Amino acid sequence: MKELEKAIMERGTVLSDGVLKVDSFLNHQIDTQLMINVGKELANRFRDNQITKVLTIESSGIAPSFMAANELAVPLVFARKKKSLTMTNDVYTSSVYSFTKQETNEITVSKNFLSAEDRVLIIDDFLANGQAAIGLTKIVEQADATVAGIGIVIEKSFQDGSSKLKEAGYLVESLARIQSLKNGKVTFLSDPILLNK
Amino acid sequence: MKELEKAIMERGTVLSDGVLKVDSFLNHQIDTQLMINVGKELANRFRDNQITKVLTIESSGIAPSFMAANELAVPLVFARKKKSLTMTNDVYTSSVYSFTKQETNEITVSKNFLSAEDRVLIIDDFLANGQAAIGLTKIVEQADATVAGIGIVIEKSFQDGSSKLKEAGYLVESLARIQSLKNGKVTFLSDPILLNK
Repeated sequence: MKELEKAIMERGTVLSDGVLKVDSFLNHQIDTQLMINVGKELANRFRDNQITKVLTIESSGIAPSFMAANELAVPLVFARKKKSLTMTNDVYTSSVYSFTKQETNEITVSKNFLSAEDRVLIIDDFLANGQAAIGLTKIVEQADATVAGIGIVIEKSFQDGSSKLKEAGYLVESLARIQSLKNGKVTFLSDPILLNK
Repeated sequence: MKELEKAIMERGTVLSDGVLKVDSFLNHQIDTQLMINVGKELANRFRDNQITKVLTIESSGIAPSFMAANELAVPLVFARKKKSLTMTNDVYTSSVYSFTKQETNEITVSKNFLSAEDRVLIIDDFLANGQAAIGLTKIVEQADATVAGIGIVIEKSFQDGSSKLKEAGYLVESLARIQSLKNGKVTFLSDPILLNK
């Protein structure tokens, strides 16, 4: 998605070979118009997948998934992060380890908001090693629901999250795919859809 | 706002005389179309206030403020909650005590995203005793910026947050004002604007 790549190039900051900071438009300050366009593009990529619910994770997943859910005319559910496990029977839970923060969070979703009939589109802001996305697929599977697809705003293609998810059989669509952050420079993977044309 | 009051009546749950659960459309599962309408209504109420930035708090403030910021064509910034104070000079911080969760969170906003020229519209999902809103005003004041208004989705008018904020001189607009949750029943305050007509 060219508009997103342009924002990453012009407004993102490469902090190291592995870390891209996008808190000026996605993670802390939000460019709502860009996020509306991101959400619509994610919806377009999964429009034929009979999605009944969009599932994301607080907090940075909410803005990009908001308009995706609205375009698909389905509810948006965000998983909550908690440091400690809440001992209760009315939630689905999964553990997510964050390499950036070096901590494990329990993520939880109320059983009220996911059921076996649901075809779920999982959306997250970043895909690196896939920990958050995998945690969300486990939540969906606990509900006996179906993961109909995984939509990502920014994929760090030099980490193994994307390949892990694809090998597990999930349909993954990422709007910006970063090949490298080396030497403070963002390089994008060329889009295979364009190459096929 | 009638559409919001209707959602509260039909889809909210009164847990006790003080607690209203709205996690089916606002706090956990999000009705994006309702939140778009909420955001537009909040924008309308502050359209003449020369807003330059909308400030909310993660995670439940993001959905209702998203379209407000978009309608006003200004960036949305969300304050981050942390259990422990991050010792750094590049953020504004404030302490917020949650009576519901009985814990104190530090809320932080990067100095990059608020400056002395800003006229800030603070938005939050709930207003009860006003702790979160007051914490956000302190952040704005640390930046030498101006609190141009406070927009609330659901005000518990039987608690003192609203009167505290108004006494401090802030312009407060709440889309649904709850007079009482007694006996499991939601009663709304009549709208003074309507009474004046």
